[in-house]
Amino acid sequence: MTNNMVTVASCQVTLVVGDVEANRQSLRSSIIRAADAGVQVVVLPELANTGYMFTDIDELRAAAEPVDGPTVGEWAALAAERDLIIVGGFAEAGRDGKIYNSAVLVDASGVRACYRKAHLWNTEKADLFTPGSGVPPVVDTAVGRIGVMVCYDLEFPEWVRTVALEGADLLCCPVNWPLYPAPEGERPIEVVKVQAAAATNRMFVAATDRAGRERGQDWLGGSVIVDADGFPLTTLGLGVAGLHIAHVDLSDARNKTISELNDVHADRRPELYFKAERRAHGTA
Amino acid sequence: MTNNMVTVASCQVTLVVGDVEANRQSLRSSIIRAADAGVQVVVLPELANTGYMFTDIDELRAAAEPVDGPTVGEWAALAAERDLIIVGGFAEAGRDGKIYNSAVLVDASGVRACYRKAHLWNTEKADLFTPGSGVPPVVDTAVGRIGVMVCYDLEFPEWVRTVALEGADLLCCPVNWPLYPAPEGERPIEVVKVQAAAATNRMFVAATDRAGRERGQDWLGGSVIVDADGFPLTTLGLGVAGLHIAHVDLSDARNKTISELNDVHADRRPELYFKAERRAHGTA
Repeated sequence: MTNNMVTVASCQVTLVVGDVEANRQSLRSSIIRAADAGVQVVVLPELANTGYMFTDIDELRAAAEPVDGPTVGEWAALAAERDLIIVGGFAEAGRDGKIYNSAVLVDASGVRACYRKAHLWNTEKADLFTPGSGVPPVVDTAVGRIGVMVCYDLEFPEWVRTVALEGADLLCCPVNWPLYPAPEGERPIEVVKVQAAAATNRMFVAATDRAGRERGQDWLGGSVIVDADGFPLTTLGLGVAGLHIAHVDLSDARNKTISELNDVHADRRPELYFKAERRAHGTA
Repeated sequence: MTNNMVTVASCQVTLVVGDVEANRQSLRSSIIRAADAGVQVVVLPELANTGYMFTDIDELRAAAEPVDGPTVGEWAALAAERDLIIVGGFAEAGRDGKIYNSAVLVDASGVRACYRKAHLWNTEKADLFTPGSGVPPVVDTAVGRIGVMVCYDLEFPEWVRTVALEGADLLCCPVNWPLYPAPEGERPIEVVKVQAAAATNRMFVAATDRAGRERGQDWLGGSVIVDADGFPLTTLGLGVAGLHIAHVDLSDARNKTISELNDVHADRRPELYFKAERRAHGTA
């Protein structure tokens, strides 16, 4: 297999709830900094246009944008200008009048995919967002196959598996991880789950979190890029804004073997999983 | 919810391939040591009666035993004598003439479950073992609901999910982890996967590995007991034989909530997972 070296960045920024203009400007600066550093794939946080700690649906609705709105438009323009692939989360005002916690993948040709978070976190469920019902996209890009999901989605291994089985080399995941205490000396469990997601599928994963505090909520700032063996390629900069860059050989994710006779995907026993799932739902 | 404090031990022993008598004696000593320390649930390694590095099927066949053979019989006798729950792996000579990489759960009343490893590792596939085709058991015991699987099984989150959805408070997993290099300062990825398995399901997991070297194969010796948040309760004793003991409140695993509005099981979207699995198999 020939090497396929790609430079990936997590833009761990601070955001201001409801101040779409300021957020857009901050993201733009970070994207340009990444492009100047030779990055090819840029991953932004979840709900990067709006921030997170909404008072109510009215505040969210006022800040949300359609997928062809100015935020995604700016990302697409930057992608075209600097030949980037950008994956970023945004509050999406759907044509159906509903608000989604979405992420787009844009490249020089425009918007390649828009995905709506299927597993909503806490107050997102409380009259704010509508959950998505589509399967996460895996997009053939100039640098490799890239999957997209959003934050809590990543904590469902079944969901991660879907993009891996579709041949994603790299899963890009905008997140907003609230800060929870971890035992002394332990890595945040969100990062542990990213490592396991990668290793379980021999797939690279780039999760981009936010830094700072917003209306009393501290963010973990746990952005991490992990290799196909599940080990971090970037140093955690917990809580601090910054650009995290990794050079990855995406071709490594196309080799699913982990021993002479083992392959992390071919070794699955889906017929047994269905049987077990039916047992769990009492329809065995 | 009332507390349900239980003492669990991983017996990380050394084993000698093919020397069933010596292995049985070594396991018996370790089980008695655990019972003397007040342990209620004892977890032994995979293939604990036989060792692992078989030259060929004849050597394996000569050492394998039926589930009503002397090794499991001794564990059942010890369980009755000391009022223990013992989960241990053994090479099982099936009535069908095939050899399985199995694990039993025995308690004072005898053998409660026998499970055959469904995901075989490397040379296990090469004319040695037949893969199981049953769903992993979850047994109602005097101390709580205990699930059983074997080694590589644990690296398939779909499989772990099945025992969690059946209400396992604790997943006991006999393993034989070959030693692979990990980057400096990184925890072995097998342990990371155990942490993620636990946290993803809010379920305790006890994995018992072996120590030492056998026919040129070094064992990781990565036994670990993790809590329902995914954090280790025991200190890794990599490569060294020893007893690892944890005091766990199994009732904590019956609470699946991780935020005011989130529940790690209720938040699943199985209908979407089926849709995605069908896409992966081209039958969408």
